[in-house]
Amino acid sequence: MKQAVFLIQASDRTGLLSQLSGFFFESNLNILHCTQYSDELEHLYFMRVRVDLTTLQTTRREMYDTFAEFCNLIGVNKFKVRYMDEIPRMAIMVSKTSHCLYDLLMHQQDGDLRCEIPLIISNHPDLEAVADKFRIPYYCVPIINNDKATQEAQIIELLERHHIDLVVMARYMQVLSDDFCKRYEHKIINIHHAFLPAFQGGNPYYRAWQRGVKMIGATAHYATADLDEGPIIEQDVERVSHEDTPESLKQLGKDIERRVLTRAVKAHLNHCVIISGRRTIVLSN
Amino acid sequence: MKQAVFLIQASDRTGLLSQLSGFFFESNLNILHCTQYSDELEHLYFMRVRVDLTTLQTTRREMYDTFAEFCNLIGVNKFKVRYMDEIPRMAIMVSKTSHCLYDLLMHQQDGDLRCEIPLIISNHPDLEAVADKFRIPYYCVPIINNDKATQEAQIIELLERHHIDLVVMARYMQVLSDDFCKRYEHKIINIHHAFLPAFQGGNPYYRAWQRGVKMIGATAHYATADLDEGPIIEQDVERVSHEDTPESLKQLGKDIERRVLTRAVKAHLNHCVIISGRRTIVLSN
Amino acid sequence: MKQAVFLIQASDRTGLLSQLSGFFFESNLNILHCTQYSDELEHLYFMRVRVDLTTLQTTRREMYDTFAEFCNLIGVNKFKVRYMDEIPRMAIMVSKTSHCLYDLLMHQQDGDLRCEIPLIISNHPDLEAVADKFRIPYYCVPIINNDKATQEAQIIELLERHHIDLVVMARYMQVLSDDFCKRYEHKIINIHHAFLPAFQGGNPYYRAWQRGVKMIGATAHYATADLDEGPIIEQDVERVSHEDTPESLKQLGKDIERRVLTRAVKAHLNHCVIISGRRTIVLSN
Amino acid sequence: MKQAVFLIQASDRTGLLSQLSGFFFESNLNILHCTQYSDELEHLYFMRVRVDLTTLQTTRREMYDTFAEFCNLIGVNKFKVRYMDEIPRMAIMVSKTSHCLYDLLMHQQDGDLRCEIPLIISNHPDLEAVADKFRIPYYCVPIINNDKATQEAQIIELLERHHIDLVVMARYMQVLSDDFCKRYEHKIINIHHAFLPAFQGGNPYYRAWQRGVKMIGATAHYATADLDEGPIIEQDVERVSHEDTPESLKQLGKDIERRVLTRAVKAHLNHCVIISGRRTIVLSN
Repeated sequence: MKQAVFLIQASDRTGLLSQLSGFFFESNLNILHCTQYSDELEHLYFMRVRVDLTTLQTTRREMYDTFAEFCNLIGVNKFKVRYMDEIPRMAIMVSKTSHCLYDLLMHQQDGDLRCEIPLIISNHPDLEAVADKFRIPYYCVPIINNDKATQEAQIIELLERHHIDLVVMARYMQVLSDDFCKRYEHKIINIHHAFLPAFQGGNPYYRAWQRGVKMIGATAHYATADLDEGPIIEQDVERVSHEDTPESLKQLGKDIERRVLTRAVKAHLNHCVIISGRRTIVLSN
Repeated sequence: MKQAVFLIQASDRTGLLSQLSGFFFESNLNILHCTQYSDELEHLYFMRVRVDLTTLQTTRREMYDTFAEFCNLIGVNKFKVRYMDEIPRMAIMVSKTSHCLYDLLMHQQDGDLRCEIPLIISNHPDLEAVADKFRIPYYCVPIINNDKATQEAQIIELLERHHIDLVVMARYMQVLSDDFCKRYEHKIINIHHAFLPAFQGGNPYYRAWQRGVKMIGATAHYATADLDEGPIIEQDVERVSHEDTPESLKQLGKDIERRVLTRAVKAHLNHCVIISGRRTIVLSN
Repeated sequence: MKQAVFLIQASDRTGLLSQLSGFFFESNLNILHCTQYSDELEHLYFMRVRVDLTTLQTTRREMYDTFAEFCNLIGVNKFKVRYMDEIPRMAIMVSKTSHCLYDLLMHQQDGDLRCEIPLIISNHPDLEAVADKFRIPYYCVPIINNDKATQEAQIIELLERHHIDLVVMARYMQVLSDDFCKRYEHKIINIHHAFLPAFQGGNPYYRAWQRGVKMIGATAHYATADLDEGPIIEQDVERVSHEDTPESLKQLGKDIERRVLTRAVKAHLNHCVIISGRRTIVLSN
Repeated sequence: MKQAVFLIQASDRTGLLSQLSGFFFESNLNILHCTQYSDELEHLYFMRVRVDLTTLQTTRREMYDTFAEFCNLIGVNKFKVRYMDEIPRMAIMVSKTSHCLYDLLMHQQDGDLRCEIPLIISNHPDLEAVADKFRIPYYCVPIINNDKATQEAQIIELLERHHIDLVVMARYMQVLSDDFCKRYEHKIINIHHAFLPAFQGGNPYYRAWQRGVKMIGATAHYATADLDEGPIIEQDVERVSHEDTPESLKQLGKDIERRVLTRAVKAHLNHCVIISGRRTIVLSN
């Protein structure tokens, strides 16, 4: 698909929509889809424009430069341009449970996730067989002698070598270091098995059972140095009852986790997400 | 609130967004909120623009005429302008059950529904006490000797005399005639106590029970001459189980009906709904 | 309805169901509905039995005593008997917002809540008009000079004089003292405007907006001395988006709060709730 | 697990619970879980009892015979006994779309579905690669010259040879003959990609789009000779909007279909479903 997505952030002011849509019109770039949102509390403006590039007369670099110049002129300080024919390269990190991994692989195979998956990384050997099923290289990078720094260095080396654009923690049960998180800022999506900010940290299903909640949930968010505090992309919940045990909550939770994670990854890969501080703007495609 | 809402429909083509947003910018009308939608299948373009009128230098009529002229020029064939300081006048029609009526009155009282309610009309005397609680005139207009034509004429006379903009059938258990529906085209909202198109017609809860469905629902739609076939504004469902009886489904259904109806009425009163054939475009406010 | 509900708790062991159902059979009390639940983790047994009393040959007191003796014999240590023709007396406590109050009154009026409402108590005069609509005595008991102890004493005096069985805090914005909570242990239902344990304490909607959650919720629980820590009866959530402001979350939340509170009150009034530590067993009716 | 599940149906009458639970007690079969339901409208009684067999002193056949005799005595006319250490053998039938197939295989692999899957049958060769991933024999049985009778005979031969207990139509796009349905009565689970009874028959997503519904759903039911009319086991829905196209509804629907189908299959395999006419009683495990 010869299409580009423009993700734009600016201080809100009169005339922005008119000027921006004017740019695309005059540049002969047909707008296929456009969504915008004004944050009235913080006076911010967000816009996502998907345009047709089949009529583009210049190089993409020239288009980019022209747009950058224009943004500079009208005071738009932040934007990204993404091309729909550039397929993101996604790494999946796992530990021992397979449900999120399977879901991602299955959706990718089915053409529902716009990405390539060059490798799966784990701190355990357990899920090699799943990776094999889908013929994806599986790297087991265990933490030896509690030396997490070395292990992370190995992982980063793998990610770099494979030109990874997005890291998905599909129930990878280790906390990433601050450095790792900063290096891949806004490029790591994690799934937490609770409805954040409830039950941050470990053992959420057991604590949910103890607290006697009537619904459980899952949260997909960008990983940041502050554990479970990154910008939330997607959440969902399901009703439970007193009949549920910590074990049955965990079983039920698997279905919530995988659908929440896959939806979040999909939104990211379709360039629908703009991050603004601790919040995400998720615009339709 | 000195604000206007423009609801715009057109054949889709390149440049519409730019031209329309340009109009508001040049007219010095600050856009507070703007949503648009391109129906790629039918090549239609829909737009809702909420603008600030505090800076308006002309009369509203002049603004309207200028916009109409502009639309004519650029080939936009259908639009409406609504003013947020003009409070719609809403009539509620009921029969014997009070839950939807209460919900509407309660929300209006609470400031959640942007409307006045000059009168309640019923074919039965039962709910007069509810109307009295809220000090709203209650007109009992029964059908005598099966003469529905006369009854409807009486109702229409009431609606006309009170300058009614919107008629809400809050479980009014009579089918309106074609003439009535056409006279108030797209101005009558009805609640059907089922998840349309399932269980069109009478006794939906009993039939849902018989069929053994695992969820029941309700549907708010514009009333048209074809019973239960009008454009749907809002739907919702709730999970039920084998333990439910037709009676308990009816009880549960009450909560679904009233929240679906109230949401639909709210969307209509906030000028968020554009009708396109049998479908509605419900844009955010 | 000449029916009784038996709510039974015991240490779990083989044969309990057989012995208990044997009792009702031999006592000629026809079981209309029976639900039970075994907590395998804590080895507890819970049972709710609704029986027909039309065939009862003894006084209710005799029936109760016979059952108590039987329980003693078989080692059942905790039970309650409730009669469906004894209508609970419920007090509603409010502050300034009316949506939960309206919802309770409306449902009670409609016959959906099995209770009488002899009085409404508030720390503010604002909602007198709502109470008047439904012709229920309204007591304004303000906190004067920060003297909460005196105010609570006045409230307790009112509750005692009116023989109140259940106190519902329908957005009453004061924390009750430990003494108050203990005096009415398991007889006070509160609605918290968040999905507990997320956003305990004040300003949950603002904090939810700040955190950028994608769903908001409400929680009905028994009030205990530990704020927002009492056993949860019911919870629900709704999807929100980046477009929502703290103000719109508050508006949306109103509909969640009132339906969650009303459902919880209904379950309590129908004697469907058994409390076990910090958890509730909510059995069907 | 040395456990048995008793699924019992009878005309409702006083004392049944006492007599049945008495039987298990006196037979020294510890009840691990028991749920029952009285259909007050049709005066039917349903019961599911899961018992521990580790203390069983007789053969299973003797236990069965003793229970059958007892049922005969007390007038219980219908029951089944299932053993949790007998793993059901499930065949999956597919056509060209893989999402439901993947979901079933993934859950089975993960230990969430209590079954073996000896074979996958399709009328098309397309999904062989998926079957290969999971190392399950794939039989392509096409319909040649429109001769469905011959094809069905071949399928039945395969099912018989593999001692299949449950057939799951995981988007198998052919209608089964009456004979096939009757032969495997209550042993075929189908997924319909709509919220039945809405949009029975073909092309439900397109028709849902045309009708402008605000939610779409899926329905898992036992296949019967009357197309899409069999007893419903499970349904679910998801909210959609005017932005959705028939194509995006289809994509969204895939996630609903697979979770509804897998839940239904799980309930069946755990012996939680009792069929009563056109309705199912789904009891907890």
